[in-house]
Amino acid sequence: MTPANLSAAKAALSHLETDENPVSVRAKSRDFFWYSPVLKARLDHLTADFVVAPKTEAEVIEVLRVAYAHDVPVTTRGAGTGNYGQAMPLAGGIVLHMKNMAAVVAVHPGRVIVQPGCLLKDVDAATRSRSGQELRMFSSTWATATIGGFVAGGSGGVGSCTWGALRDLGNIIRLRVVTMEAEPRVLEFTGEELHRVSHAYGTNGIITEIEMPLAPAYDWVEVFVATHSFPDATAFAADLGREDGLLKKLISVYEAPITQTYFQRVAPHVSPGQALIGLMIAPHAMDAFLTFTARRPGARVIWRSDRPDWDREPGPVFEYGWNHTTLRALKVDRVITYLRVRYAGHDFIDKVETIRAAFPGEVMQHLEEMQENGPVVFAGLSLVRFITEARL
Amino acid sequence: MTPANLSAAKAALSHLETDENPVSVRAKSRDFFWYSPVLKARLDHLTADFVVAPKTEAEVIEVLRVAYAHDVPVTTRGAGTGNYGQAMPLAGGIVLHMKNMAAVVAVHPGRVIVQPGCLLKDVDAATRSRSGQELRMFSSTWATATIGGFVAGGSGGVGSCTWGALRDLGNIIRLRVVTMEAEPRVLEFTGEELHRVSHAYGTNGIITEIEMPLAPAYDWVEVFVATHSFPDATAFAADLGREDGLLKKLISVYEAPITQTYFQRVAPHVSPGQALIGLMIAPHAMDAFLTFTARRPGARVIWRSDRPDWDREPGPVFEYGWNHTTLRALKVDRVITYLRVRYAGHDFIDKVETIRAAFPGEVMQHLEEMQENGPVVFAGLSLVRFITEARL
Repeated sequence: MTPANLSAAKAALSHLETDENPVSVRAKSRDFFWYSPVLKARLDHLTADFVVAPKTEAEVIEVLRVAYAHDVPVTTRGAGTGNYGQAMPLAGGIVLHMKNMAAVVAVHPGRVIVQPGCLLKDVDAATRSRSGQELRMFSSTWATATIGGFVAGGSGGVGSCTWGALRDLGNIIRLRVVTMEAEPRVLEFTGEELHRVSHAYGTNGIITEIEMPLAPAYDWVEVFVATHSFPDATAFAADLGREDGLLKKLISVYEAPITQTYFQRVAPHVSPGQALIGLMIAPHAMDAFLTFTARRPGARVIWRSDRPDWDREPGPVFEYGWNHTTLRALKVDRVITYLRVRYAGHDFIDKVETIRAAFPGEVMQHLEEMQENGPVVFAGLSLVRFITEARL
Repeated sequence: MTPANLSAAKAALSHLETDENPVSVRAKSRDFFWYSPVLKARLDHLTADFVVAPKTEAEVIEVLRVAYAHDVPVTTRGAGTGNYGQAMPLAGGIVLHMKNMAAVVAVHPGRVIVQPGCLLKDVDAATRSRSGQELRMFSSTWATATIGGFVAGGSGGVGSCTWGALRDLGNIIRLRVVTMEAEPRVLEFTGEELHRVSHAYGTNGIITEIEMPLAPAYDWVEVFVATHSFPDATAFAADLGREDGLLKKLISVYEAPITQTYFQRVAPHVSPGQALIGLMIAPHAMDAFLTFTARRPGARVIWRSDRPDWDREPGPVFEYGWNHTTLRALKVDRVITYLRVRYAGHDFIDKVETIRAAFPGEVMQHLEEMQENGPVVFAGLSLVRFITEARL
């Protein structure tokens, strides 16, 4: 890529919505890579040369054709809420910003057709109001992230305790993709072919339309449960995950002192050493849920959103879970980062305890329950006190 | 119970809807007990003295008060589609027929409130038309059985491959019950208390109102898959049951020669020795389902209800499953009965093979997949060639 290439590409795309202001171009070249001290050191300087925000698939094709012709790299970006630098231009060039392609195209029983730049919360708002449905799963950045970014960069999230991961059969129905080549092609992927582009960060095609399955939208009751011990919490979460008739959307587990140190509005309601479980339960499953909880002397409901009784309400319980846990910890303590772990197999709870025992004080267990083709597993998003890169 | 008691009870209830015609009283005293050659020999002679069909809960209370006062037994009955004589009067007296209490009282997001005499198909019709919802599960006698009979006598059915058994937490929300004592009480049961009356055949209280969870109603695609071998079929069923993102309502497995001998409209489409799988798949999961199937060289879709291509359509696929399998076999071969088996544990497929090997020609495997608090299991409703009671 030479300055001449860049100038030619810019000129060829000048009739589209572009941005060359260095400050805003730099802002649009960054995501939440700073979750990682390793990536922070390596990616902080990156910036694109300019930003293009296409309004139609035809404009996407035009951008890709021009960029290919002039050998200019293209980095696709939704809202930039990923944690791994997936939306950052490693070699400058164009950031392809999808904010202008945000229409909810159609809502049908069990599915929605939507453009990639639509925010997750706007997908849900549209499917709720038009049909009483909502997305099966979303990232904890629901309020700010896009559906395109979720499909291209995410793996699962709130809802995965019932529906499994995004990659599992049935959790994405169809992706429409534009290729980057001399003459870009428009391809429709379903079934086995979906894996070519989902979770590929736009590196092998730009998603221009997404068809996702929907589930019924309920007024989920958000719940916090405190348990005497961490093993009480993991057993609670594992067993609850196995209750197929008890409809839920979130089961997050937090070892002490995560709640006590990082969840300011929850901290006054737990004792030192207590673990916390964050939950979303269907309203018509609350009787079943309270029955389940009453069987466990070590567990106590401390918050339910349908009967608020705290002076300061905690806000959405899902905004304590998944990657928001690390975000909350980072706000309090800049040395925190996290590591993704998968605890599976019949002894998955024992594996968690082995890791707990190995890194006392350095690693704090944060677990998210997922269905994994039958058995429940924990996705670990362990909070880690960063010491050195080698140690990490 | 003396004739004097009976006469007094009859007189006291004569203002209600009663039936004393011996022919119709006998008909209303029978269920599908004749599935079992053992029960057929033992229960065939049973009949009540008269039938009362209350129209309101107040009338139920009146019947129970009068029956208690005169020491007359009461046997509650929905549509009489049970297979175990649960609705048959072992000692005469009154059959309490619930057909007049069949109102769908209210439909809310995720739940329905209904009277016990409502047919399962009428519950679904009402919840579909009012709200786009349907029952999570139903017996294969959906078209003729009542919701009260299902809750009081059933254990699960079509839908259990996703939602588990009726007894599992969350699959019944609330039961309203009238007790039989000098002054009958009206009790509301939820949570742990539900087990006092669900699956108790009305023996310790008469259900007068039922609150059940609902799921979204889809235009389920009904599918038959033929497999080369029976192990191909069990592996297919087990793995499909574990696909949490692939929404389904039925997974039935039939060993050869069940299809070849008893399923007349399906038989022309399978080869000798092939096993059959009956399925209900959500329309928006069909891409995922066909992807799943394409991974298995031993499996082939031979029927899908959304693309009918047989000269004679097979009718609802669920009417081949659960207790309808035995019914179809009985129509062809009067020596058939069935045994309920549960195949669970990590080696549940091996257990099926052990039983297969032990009773060649005598026992034919019919399996229904269920979720069982996490793992999938098979409910076996094995077809058995009845030889003697001792052998059975």
